Amino acid sequence: MSELRKDPVSRRWVIFSPDRAHRPVDVKSKGEEKIQEEVVNCPFCEGKEKIAGTEILAYDKILGRKPNTPGWWVRVLENKYPALENKENLEKRAEGIYDWMNDLGRHEIIVETPNHFIQLPDLTEEEIEKVLLSFKERYYNIKNNPHIEYILIFKNYGKEAGASLQHSHSQLIATPVVPNRVKEEIKNSHEYYTFRDRCIFCDIVTQELSSRKRIIEENSDFVSFVFYAGRFPYETWILPKEHASNFEDTSIEKIRSLAEILKKTLTKIQKALNDTPYNLVFHTLPVKMKDKEYFHWHIEIMPKTTRVAGFEWGSGFYINPILPEDAAKILNSVE
Amino acid sequence: MSELRKDPVSRRWVIFSPDRAHRPVDVKSKGEEKIQEEVVNCPFCEGKEKIAGTEILAYDKILGRKPNTPGWWVRVLENKYPALENKENLEKRAEGIYDWMNDLGRHEIIVETPNHFIQLPDLTEEEIEKVLLSFKERYYNIKNNPHIEYILIFKNYGKEAGASLQHSHSQLIATPVVPNRVKEEIKNSHEYYTFRDRCIFCDIVTQELSSRKRIIEENSDFVSFVFYAGRFPYETWILPKEHASNFEDTSIEKIRSLAEILKKTLTKIQKALNDTPYNLVFHTLPVKMKDKEYFHWHIEIMPKTTRVAGFEWGSGFYINPILPEDAAKILNSVE
Repeated sequence: MSELRKDPVSRRWVIFSPDRAHRPVDVKSKGEEKIQEEVVNCPFCEGKEKIAGTEILAYDKILGRKPNTPGWWVRVLENKYPALENKENLEKRAEGIYDWMNDLGRHEIIVETPNHFIQLPDLTEEEIEKVLLSFKERYYNIKNNPHIEYILIFKNYGKEAGASLQHSHSQLIATPVVPNRVKEEIKNSHEYYTFRDRCIFCDIVTQELSSRKRIIEENSDFVSFVFYAGRFPYETWILPKEHASNFEDTSIEKIRSLAEILKKTLTKIQKALNDTPYNLVFHTLPVKMKDKEYFHWHIEIMPKTTRVAGFEWGSGFYINPILPEDAAKILNSVE
Repeated sequence: MSELRKDPVSRRWVIFSPDRAHRPVDVKSKGEEKIQEEVVNCPFCEGKEKIAGTEILAYDKILGRKPNTPGWWVRVLENKYPALENKENLEKRAEGIYDWMNDLGRHEIIVETPNHFIQLPDLTEEEIEKVLLSFKERYYNIKNNPHIEYILIFKNYGKEAGASLQHSHSQLIATPVVPNRVKEEIKNSHEYYTFRDRCIFCDIVTQELSSRKRIIEENSDFVSFVFYAGRFPYETWILPKEHASNFEDTSIEKIRSLAEILKKTLTKIQKALNDTPYNLVFHTLPVKMKDKEYFHWHIEIMPKTTRVAGFEWGSGFYINPILPEDAAKILNSVE
């Protein structure tokens, strides 16, 4: 049972989730030895469907497979230690000068492969395509809930990036308010559009494709590059080349193309940075907004090679020790 | 030589500082053994003044002490690996659609004690008072520079909090723009004041002192409490009880009182959480603003017991596994 509280100064919501303190942990720091016996207790492994959270969606390998049994490519589960829960009623109240809400929302796990020892970039393009299609399918399913305002899809890889289980997975959290950082991105891109009559992200894509100083990968539909002003060393963005504001409306053909660039980009990052922990986050429009000319969905990949310190927490300013042009050279040097 | 680049979407500035990748590191993770020989190379130890950065200010133990020699309580140094540097001219230019600035600013180290093996909460109140007075003195000195818009004072303790050297120290970074998070706090508190004709922080202090559910320490001038909507477990704020917008205008008498509550609060945190890494950040008005009825300076202490993950980076929403009331009980249980 969680609750949401709002910081009246920053206007940021915080989810207080005491149950999550009890969730199982098997992830290791980079360099720590991986212990074979962990696989015995991993709830995401094929054959362990009974101890995992309830299955919401699966792409089956075996025709006529029953839910919560082996024989799948990708499985979406209810998180057993959810930050937010599927509830009927959204409750809101004041606590003196503070604001409070109940924990209505969704918290799902996308298990990307039945195999404990393969990570996302090592899957085939066809397998990654299935993972991306499951995101799209869950997105469409959840967006009909009238209380849901935003759906955030993300992946934490490695202990330093906040992962608790090592079996390859992504997460989906649906929230009853639009998060502040999303509001900020939308407001700022809207202002840019008002000023220039162009999408700021389209301008970024054009400039990156023209300068080519920071490009990592490119195919017919997508481009990935180290971001000009990334907070973190090697911070890499993937954007559709053609303007598109909603991830969930990406066509099946383009999902295949996204799988290709995601695999190639993550492989370069993992090879060049020696299997570094990273966060990967989808940025898309809030569920009740559609086809905006000023917003452009994208993926941000943030390798965690440095630590965030007091200066960053206090200012929102970041210190990054590697110039993006140099980071791009390093990522592109791997074969 | 650093440079500043602006993210046109979030409008956040990032300092790119390749030289900082070469700074010395001796800090250990919690639990790792502290090695005696580190003291031999520590540039902040008494007797090592020649290898430290240039001395800007010192409070002397020895009458007639010469700069950069032993015999001091507190010493303020130029950072040898600065994120920003003391320069004459602020340069700004466009890089296509992006914005660029040179690295004008200040980056100073406040060495809090000559002793390598004592940390801030273990100093006497008189010694902590000297540390706080040095902050105030540097603040007054730097604020006259017409290019400086903000002065951020902060402390990183422990590897997980981003510290690189273990010898007890704080840092000061002066920036040529007001950081986004500061702008946001000021804008939001201003709006609250416009709506209610009261300072939001004064309201928070009143409610905390009345409910007493989250109080950690209190004296005649200050109160510390676990924040109602803290991003991090045990996040604790220290505020002056009486409205005051600028830290640097705190009277000498109140600085003594601040030293007392800071020592007691940090001691509880360090005892209850077993010497946990933490960030401590001063929040005060930008240098060109003064005596605002809607802003209230304060200190935020953020122990680092959890890791920030993709959900937080993507949304600005935080997940905190410990209710502040329970965290306050745990902090208050130590003797």
